[in-house]
Order: sequence, then structure tokens, then C-alpha cells
Amino acid sequence: MRMVDVIEKKRNGKSLTTEEIEFLVKGYTNGDIPDYQMSALLMAIFYQDMTDTEITNLTLNMANSGDVIDLASITGIKVDKHSTGGVGDTTTLVLAPLVASVGVPVAKMSGRGLGHTGGTIDKLEAIPGFQVEIPNEQFIRLVNESQVAVTGQSGNLAPADKKLYALRDVTATVDSIPLIASSIMSKKIAAGADAIVLDVTTGDGAFMKNIEDATRLAETMVRIGKLAGRQTMAVISDMSQPLGEAIGNSIEIEEAINTLKGQGPKDLEEMVFVLGSQMVVLAKKAETLEEARQLLEEALHSGKALAKFKEMIENQGGDPSVVDQPEKMGTAKYVTVLPAKESGYIRNIHAENVGIAAMLLGAGRKTKEDVIDYTVGVKLHKKVGMAVEQGEPLVTVYANTEDITEVEQLLYNNIEIGEEVAEPVLVRKIITE
Amino acid sequence: MRMVDVIEKKRNGKSLTTEEIEFLVKGYTNGDIPDYQMSALLMAIFYQDMTDTEITNLTLNMANSGDVIDLASITGIKVDKHSTGGVGDTTTLVLAPLVASVGVPVAKMSGRGLGHTGGTIDKLEAIPGFQVEIPNEQFIRLVNESQVAVTGQSGNLAPADKKLYALRDVTATVDSIPLIASSIMSKKIAAGADAIVLDVTTGDGAFMKNIEDATRLAETMVRIGKLAGRQTMAVISDMSQPLGEAIGNSIEIEEAINTLKGQGPKDLEEMVFVLGSQMVVLAKKAETLEEARQLLEEALHSGKALAKFKEMIENQGGDPSVVDQPEKMGTAKYVTVLPAKESGYIRNIHAENVGIAAMLLGAGRKTKEDVIDYTVGVKLHKKVGMAVEQGEPLVTVYANTEDITEVEQLLYNNIEIGEEVAEPVLVRKIITE
Repeated sequence: MRMVDVIEKKRNGKSLTTEEIEFLVKGYTNGDIPDYQMSALLMAIFYQDMTDTEITNLTLNMANSGDVIDLASITGIKVDKHSTGGVGDTTTLVLAPLVASVGVPVAKMSGRGLGHTGGTIDKLEAIPGFQVEIPNEQFIRLVNESQVAVTGQSGNLAPADKKLYALRDVTATVDSIPLIASSIMSKKIAAGADAIVLDVTTGDGAFMKNIEDATRLAETMVRIGKLAGRQTMAVISDMSQPLGEAIGNSIEIEEAINTLKGQGPKDLEEMVFVLGSQMVVLAKKAETLEEARQLLEEALHSGKALAKFKEMIENQGGDPSVVDQPEKMGTAKYVTVLPAKESGYIRNIHAENVGIAAMLLGAGRKTKEDVIDYTVGVKLHKKVGMAVEQGEPLVTVYANTEDITEVEQLLYNNIEIGEEVAEPVLVRKIITE
Repeated sequence: MRMVDVIEKKRNGKSLTTEEIEFLVKGYTNGDIPDYQMSALLMAIFYQDMTDTEITNLTLNMANSGDVIDLASITGIKVDKHSTGGVGDTTTLVLAPLVASVGVPVAKMSGRGLGHTGGTIDKLEAIPGFQVEIPNEQFIRLVNESQVAVTGQSGNLAPADKKLYALRDVTATVDSIPLIASSIMSKKIAAGADAIVLDVTTGDGAFMKNIEDATRLAETMVRIGKLAGRQTMAVISDMSQPLGEAIGNSIEIEEAINTLKGQGPKDLEEMVFVLGSQMVVLAKKAETLEEARQLLEEALHSGKALAKFKEMIENQGGDPSVVDQPEKMGTAKYVTVLPAKESGYIRNIHAENVGIAAMLLGAGRKTKEDVIDYTVGVKLHKKVGMAVEQGEPLVTVYANTEDITEVEQLLYNNIEIGEEVAEPVLVRKIITE
């Protein structure tokens, strides 16, 4: 088999066979196929798309290109959740203890990565003592005993995807539905998931800028999940503004705690119930989404979910008293409340740029070498659709540098006040098959 | 400027600016832009095409990426001719002395390359003593004194094109009109042409399999030639069967001599008149194509053209007596006449495979290291549309190996005899602007 023939076939709009896809993933991973041929193929895929069978083959071959985590020794159906990314997305921090508290095993592996804030494991490290690097046996024991553990990604998961993603990033082939879908699903499968819940975000702060593309991506992933033998559901959620109110690390942990106390931002709580219900159904702890939601609401309002979070912190060496004294995670030196400059309604909160404001403060990494400052970030006092009076608190900035002029400017420029607008619909679509 | 942004721009169907094209050609030539980004761009160009302005910019930047031959010291308008390739294409060997004999300066640089037979300079080397590697000053002096000289390509012509072509070859991005057009035109311009005549072949033995693609390519090259300040004309010619009768090296020289004597195959003679007329008009030695053709017919029938060929051979150290004693070029050991196995009409001569038969005999190079055998080849006794009786000579094989079973089989399989068909139209289109 010659790679140039595989490229030409796809270029001409034909489907690649199982053997051809195996050939190209193996060849690329072991270095037999050079980058310049793979990038030509990626661009051809960008234009010609792939069938569900092709995407499934690509996904499985990438999943099998490195270590595949075996979670068989964990009792029950392991449901993983993946979000295509957003700004201020605290859902995993709430979801993990919440669904664990109703008996769904949560064996969460999470990366660090780059972004506006740290990843889930970075955020958990804001809790004094919390260990994210735990040995595999301990990880599995904790999930079996306590239903929940969170660890950093260990091993060599889907190296084909890692290599391909780096190539896509520099060849303008990132935004291709079959390539995005196979990239996400290959990592979830390699991480040992039996079933997968997907949160496909859409809007300004998300990768998918419009609902049509988000729907195509979600439907594709649900179909290939099933073809790959993993029950998969998806939610298409709005990310035109940040989710919740906090964008940072320790302030997002605090927001997660508040949500587990039933005192969190309503949009975040709603997202958690919607995604959590899917996880509960896929784990076969409820028959219907409605039944699942009821279970979760009970767990949240009874304090069971919060207790599970404390247990999880304790299990991983952290100080559970942060739940009542969040200031134990440290506080920022300069806390500045920015008042609204005019009266009106919040028309738009440009999620992407508000995220960048948090990153400029030090909440996230621009490059792998950057060190995260857990205590900094921004907190929104008003969300889209809400009325605001001139002089009322609009947003609070948590900083460790005195001069926040640039961040202040960025925030004012990206929170638009004007005529009344409707609150955005948070859950745009639910895709179960 | 970042290459990934240039790729994305073209991917999204936008036109690249003059600066962007300069950036990518320079960057790719000097190694700043890696192959994997260039191949992604090439695939995007395959789908999104380029405007005439973009192709012209690409052409000129590639032409200027290495040496540019200065033919200013040659008096008159230097017209170069280029064929997109075919089987048994002997036109250059006839054209060079023919148009030179009416006063058009022919400063022909020619490569060796790979193919069914050798290139023009390989063929000329079949003439005892003929020197194709001549110093630049001698080359220019000969053209000024005698109107014609043929030399191997010297210097580093259009290295950007060379590097790009090698990449296209392995990334399924060869058959793209803007890339083919800029590749051809960049080399002609770097070789110092003032005006260019293009022979765009179409059909089974050609790169462009259908007339629509051939027309698009020809029209594109004529337009960008003009935009680049080079008068350009094109002929679209049939290559569904080999041109002329001989496919080899010394036998093609013999065929060229016969044609210069007015005794050559009619299709080859016609092609030479059509292409030659364009060269004469572009060199301003005639006002119209009709007037030019009359000049050329006179030169051919008066023996002026043949005399010019002898002069050219003598000028370059060759033995001009081959014109009357072609056997001085050596002869093949085994000459086998293959008779027709049935009576009927020649319906089809599969040019590509007949060319491969010649290559199998040793007439061409499969790899750069192969050594050409000048004396071998095949000669067709019948062309498409002609009647043939069973037992009549169909094709003669000139070989230096006794066992020609494979070649014989290939030839019989690719010369189809059956019901009467019309003779193919040789000159499909003439494109002058």
C-alpha cells in the first residue's frame, strides 16, 4: 500500500477501507509516513469529509496506538464526560462528586493543557494537600471504595492523536468535524470509558461557533461512539458567555462547592443536572433522564453530593475544610470590583476575551512552561439578559499585580450594556442517538 | 506572516496576495517553511484553484528562485516551445532546425528526465560526436551565427519548482491546473524565453486525459504568459495514439530527418507546421499564422530546413552524414516485424502502453541511474483509422535482447483492430489569447 494512493483516493472523494486507515495510523505513529503526506491527507479530509465507518476506524486505530487503560477491575459502567471546551467551565468539579454520590463510578483522568484557566486537575491542586498524581492501584481502589477519584493522565494515551493534533495545528486542518470527532473519541476510548457523555459547546467562547456545526459534531460523535461499542450521548450547550460566574482556579473550586451546596449559579447547576442525568442513565442507575435528574437533585439538596466531594478531597490527601473555609486555598492580593459604567441590560459577554483576561492575570497557561496562579481570576456579577444600574458591581478582578489596567479595559470592552435582550438558552439540544 | 494563516486563507477560498506568494515561495525554497505546511497548502490549492494573478505571481517567484538565463546577447525574439508530454514526440528535433532556417533564433535548453524514451538531448546524443554540454558563450555564439543550438540544462533553474514538484509527486497534488501551469511557465521564463509556444497534449498518452482539462490548462498558461510579459500561444493536440511512427532514440532522429526531407509521417509534419507557425509569428518573422506556415513549407520543401539540421549537427561536433546514412547511429541486434493477427481497421493504439514497451526495450529511463540504449524502440506501420490485412506488418520491434515476448504481448494487447473508425483529429484547438 502506498500513502500517495491513499491520499489520492480520499482527495477524489472516495471512502478509505479499514486496512487503509490502519495502514495510515500505524505508519504515521511509527514514522514510516512523513508529516508532509499526512498533512496533505488531512487537508483532503477537510474537504471530502469521512463516513461514520471511516471515522470509527480512525478513532479505534488512534485509541489503540498507545496505552489503553483497563478499568475492568472497577465495578459498574464507567461513564466518562468530555466537554469541547469553554470559559469558566466548572462542570466536572461538580459532576464528579454529584454522580458518584448516586453510585456512578467516576474514574476521571484529566490533562493539564493550555487555556484561560488550568484544567480540572490544576484546579484541584488549589486545594491544600490535594494529590492528583496517584498510583494506578490506589486510583482504582478509591473508585471501587468511594465511587470517585481524579488523576492526571498517565501513560501514553493515543499518541497517534497527539502527533496528528500537533500537525493539524500548524496546517489549518483543526476545524474538521471527522478529525475533531475522532480525536476526542479516541482519547476517551483509550482512557477506558464504557460510555461517554459529551458536552459540545457552541458560541463565541467555544470551538464550534454555530449551532449547525456543533450539531453535526455531536451527532457524529454519538454515532461513532455507538459503532465503537460505547454508548454515547451529547448535549449542545451555549457558550456565548462564560458558564457560571467564576473564571479562575480556586474561585472555580469555591463556585463548585457553592453549587454542591445548592447555592451555585443557576446556569452551572442546570448544566450539571443535564449532563449528570445522561451519565446516570448510561451507567444504568436510572431508566430515564427524568428519573436520573430526580436522583441527582435529591443528592444535591440532601448534602450527599457535598459530602462525597469532602470524601474525595480527603481520599486524595487534601484538606476537606476548604469546603467551609475556601480562603484556605489562598486569596489574591488585589481584589477590585469594577462598577457598571452605565445602566441597562447585559447584552453580551464575549466569553473568549473574558477568558483571556483571566489568563492575563495568571489563571491559565499560554505555554507549557507557564506556572498557574491559583488565586487570581475574574467573577461576573451579571450575566446576559440581567438588568444593571450604573455604579453596581459588574465584575470582580482577583489579581496579584497592582496594575490591572489592561485586564480592566479588556473586561469593559467585552461586557456590552444596552437594550434589553433575552437570556440565552443554555441547553440547545440533547442528542441521545 | 505565518504560513498556517496563509494555508487557512487559501483553504477558505480566498486569493493570496503578492506578498503572501513571495513569502511562501521564498520560505519554502530556503527551508523556513516545512514540507508538511506546503503540502497542506498544495492540497488546498487543488480544491480552491487560483486566480490568474495568483498563478502569475507563483510563476514569477518560482522563476526567480534560482538562476535566470540571460539571452539578451542573442539577437531577435527568443521563442521557446514546450510540450506537456507524449509518446513518440519528435517535434522538437524537426522544429528547431526548421524555424531556425527561416530566421527564428532557437536557443533550446532541454533536460534529460525520465520517460518512455530519452529527452531531446538524449536523442541527439545518438548522433556520433554530438555534444550537448557546450559552454554558455559557445551556445550563444552558435545561436547568433547559425540561429540554432541545443544544450542540456545548466545552472540551478527554478529550484522552488523542482522542490515543489517532488513534494506534489508524493502528496497527490500533481494534477492541479494552477500548479501545472506555474511549474511549466516558471521553467520557461527562467530559461530566458521572450515568447512561448505550448503544445498541450490530450488523450490516453498525455497528462491531460480530456479536452476540457487540456483547454483549461492551455488557456491558463496563455493568460499568465501574457501577464508575465511573455507572448504565449498554445496548441491542443491529440495524444490518444503516439505521434509519428517511431518511439525510440536513433529511430526518432531518423524520423526527424525523414520529416525534414518531406518524407515523414503526416501527423508529425502537421504538428511541426502548426507549432512552427506560432513560433514564427511570435518571433515576428511573419504577420499571420498562414504566412508563417507558407514560409515553413517552403523551407522544408526547398531543403533549407534539412541543411540547417546538418549545420546544427556539425556545429555541435556531430557527424552530419547520419542525415543520409542513419545506420551510422548504430542499429539494434534484433529487428522483428510483428504481423497483424487479423484484418480490419486500427481502432486504438494505447499510447501510454506502447511507450512502456519502448521503455522495457531500454529506450527510456525508469530511474535516473538507467542508461539509455539509443538503438532500440518500436515503429508503428499503421495508425488509428488505417485498414490492415492479416499478416501485414503492424509494428517493428528494435531490440538488443533476443527474448521480446513481454514487449510483443504488450504491443499486441495495445493495438486494437476491429470495425472502421475515423482518423483522430490531430490539432484539437489553437489558443492564441
